[in-house]
Amino acid sequence: MSADGPVAEQAMRRALAASDRVHGTTSPNPAVGCVVLDRDGRVVGTGATSPPGGPHAERAALAEAGPRAAGGTAVVTLEPCNHTGRTAPCVDGLLEAGISRVYTALADPNPVAAGGLDRLRAAGVEVTLGTLATEVARGPLRGWLHRQRTGRPHVTWKVATTLDGRVAAADGSSRWITGPEARGEVHDLRRRMDAIVAGTGTVLADDPVLTARHPDGTLRDHQPLRVVVGNRDVPPGARLRAEGVAPALHLRTRDPAEVLAELTRRDVVDLLLEGGPTLAGAFVAAGAVDRVLVHLAPALLGAGPHALGDAGVGTIADIVRLQVDEVRRAGGDIVVDAVIDPRPACGPAE
Amino acid sequence: MSADGPVAEQAMRRALAASDRVHGTTSPNPAVGCVVLDRDGRVVGTGATSPPGGPHAERAALAEAGPRAAGGTAVVTLEPCNHTGRTAPCVDGLLEAGISRVYTALADPNPVAAGGLDRLRAAGVEVTLGTLATEVARGPLRGWLHRQRTGRPHVTWKVATTLDGRVAAADGSSRWITGPEARGEVHDLRRRMDAIVAGTGTVLADDPVLTARHPDGTLRDHQPLRVVVGNRDVPPGARLRAEGVAPALHLRTRDPAEVLAELTRRDVVDLLLEGGPTLAGAFVAAGAVDRVLVHLAPALLGAGPHALGDAGVGTIADIVRLQVDEVRRAGGDIVVDAVIDPRPACGPAE
Ligand SMILES: NC(=O)c1ccc[n+]([C@@H]2O[C@H](COP(=O)([O-])OP(=O)(O)OC[C@H]3O[C@@H](n4cnc5c(N)ncnc54)[C@H](OP(=O)(O)O)[C@@H]3O)[C@@H](O)[C@H]2O)c1
Ligand SMILES: NC(=O)c1ccc[n+]([C@@H]2O[C@H](COP(=O)([O-])OP(=O)(O)OC[C@H]3O[C@@H](n4cnc5c(N)ncnc54)[C@H](OP(=O)(O)O)[C@@H]3O)[C@@H](O)[C@H]2O)c1
Repeated sequence: MSADGPVAEQAMRRALAASDRVHGTTSPNPAVGCVVLDRDGRVVGTGATSPPGGPHAERAALAEAGPRAAGGTAVVTLEPCNHTGRTAPCVDGLLEAGISRVYTALADPNPVAAGGLDRLRAAGVEVTLGTLATEVARGPLRGWLHRQRTGRPHVTWKVATTLDGRVAAADGSSRWITGPEARGEVHDLRRRMDAIVAGTGTVLADDPVLTARHPDGTLRDHQPLRVVVGNRDVPPGARLRAEGVAPALHLRTRDPAEVLAELTRRDVVDLLLEGGPTLAGAFVAAGAVDRVLVHLAPALLGAGPHALGDAGVGTIADIVRLQVDEVRRAGGDIVVDAVIDPRPACGPAE
Repeated sequence: MSADGPVAEQAMRRALAASDRVHGTTSPNPAVGCVVLDRDGRVVGTGATSPPGGPHAERAALAEAGPRAAGGTAVVTLEPCNHTGRTAPCVDGLLEAGISRVYTALADPNPVAAGGLDRLRAAGVEVTLGTLATEVARGPLRGWLHRQRTGRPHVTWKVATTLDGRVAAADGSSRWITGPEARGEVHDLRRRMDAIVAGTGTVLADDPVLTARHPDGTLRDHQPLRVVVGNRDVPPGARLRAEGVAPALHLRTRDPAEVLAELTRRDVVDLLLEGGPTLAGAFVAAGAVDRVLVHLAPALLGAGPHALGDAGVGTIADIVRLQVDEVRRAGGDIVVDAVIDPRPACGPAE
């Protein structure tokens, strides 16, 4: 006996949720989730990828399941790995535990780790590929899949703007354009990221901390690397430099390609570009933005800095078109979640 | 016997749709819709307000119903009028036809015409007030109710902008930022309006026609008054001046209050402010915008004219907040339909 389709989908959602909880802590490894069901389709183990060096999702779920995994089903967001890295192949673990059926959302695009499904099939395990594939591909694996494909981090540009495209008032004041729900979502997003990037202009104007915090202001467990880009100095008193918070890095360049190369070297998979308009414009011009997350406040300013600075677009034919994945409300605000239509590979703006 | 609640609501939706079809052709009278049901709750007549001087909605619906109205129900978006203007009171018509029950969404705020429901009750008609009141108040009566309350036209500012708040590219090109569905909605909107207003800047830059057209480019039956605001001349060759299309008016002023006063005098109830940013900023600053309709193209420009020019807001505390009524998709675009939180009465910007 084995779990049927709807049960597998339910388990896949659970595996996805498990992977989401560790998203941001596993790079450069993918944040995978796994659920083990016993012969009767009951959940007996749930696991997610540990930080590098620790057990993979399948190992964690199998450990929780123990002998109840025998003859059962493993539901895992990514094809179980088939290579010995810092840990033994997950395929071995699944076979040793006596798993008889495996559901996976996505195949592993990494040729070194792939081949897991083939080995499972060869050992007589019933294998289904593609369960909730679209949902999983938009989840915590998104940045990792992107990095596998392109060799560089996945870049999300997030901006909080009024309906008329202003990110601050004429005098520079900007607290707060969006409401607490939208701001809370930004902190949820930050804790999933490997790095947050801002330009020296934003650092000098707003003196932001760029940490991931809880609504009460306390720090979250995981803090991304905070990166400042630009040639000017970050003042010694900047809040970003405060001790004991999270690592910070200053890249004295104006070239998005250099930023991405350095952060690739530092194992960054998910990068959040938080501003400001000048740096965002340079990233868009360089084809270095993949996802755009706009927090739209239903408000008007009529003056003040723009959401996006020069992105190298001079005429309407060159407009940067997006594909909208989702439009939703967050408190009184509107969130537009979109991807940029693929453009020429990342390089310096022309 | 008489129609019960759900039947009345269904009939009210039908009455609302009937009034929507004549919206834009009835000013200064309200665009009302009426449905007459026979004793058994069957629709036997549907009517809407005719252009000024013609029959009101109730008269039209009763005429269609004929003797089948006796003992039946009238469902009407606005309280039936009780005064003799260019036509006899609708209340007389309902009583003469032998209507035994009346459902109305909204009471008539106009003291001259009001009192209809009281007279009906006094004559033994069963009267219900408030059926689908919220829906009806946001429909074709909205502008008229606003004008009754404030003494000036209801102003909708419509803008088509990118997600980063640009209404044209750096070189001025702007065809097309939004897609055909959103542009079609603008023409649907225009034919419901009494006047469309644009600044000389938009006329000189884009040479728009500002007519209400069908998707194939042919003119709709109803054309609003086209109004240009600003001190510069409209060139003799401007498309707006083309003969045989629709009336056009040039107001040589920069004061929104003067524009509204002149258009109030001309019986304008619903006014569509279509641009550009400078004029829109002046209207917002003057507290003269009631509804904001933003057509957001999922696209980025990073340069070019802004959605909104100076609106007198210098710091974040003075931000103009909106209440969002609806967010929806129109083809690939996003439409945000909102109202401006009430501000001080309209006057020149300070
Ligand atoms: N609402 C929001 O979501 C949000 C987010 C962030 C910022 N903001 C607002 O944005 C404003 C700051 O704007 P900003 O444009 O100055 O900020 P910015 O983009 O963070 O910083 C601009 C600076 O970054 C450096 N830089 C890095 N790469 C560059 C490149 N390719 N081209 C040019 N310069 C590059 C330059 O400084 P160097 O001279 O040091 O090289 C430049 O002056 C503030 O008012 C802030 O409140 C709003
Ligand atoms: N995407 C859209 O929805 C949309 C809609 C409209 C326009 N646009 C774009 O907007 C651009 C034109 O912008 P614009 O700001 O020049 O257009 P505008 O607002 O239509 O016209 C501005 C002009 O109106 C006059 N004016 C009237 N009242 C005024 C006041 N209170 N204060 C100052 N001036 C007043 C002034 O001209 P006088 O000197 O003659 O008095 C001023 O130069 C074009 O690129 C056009 O494509 C886009």
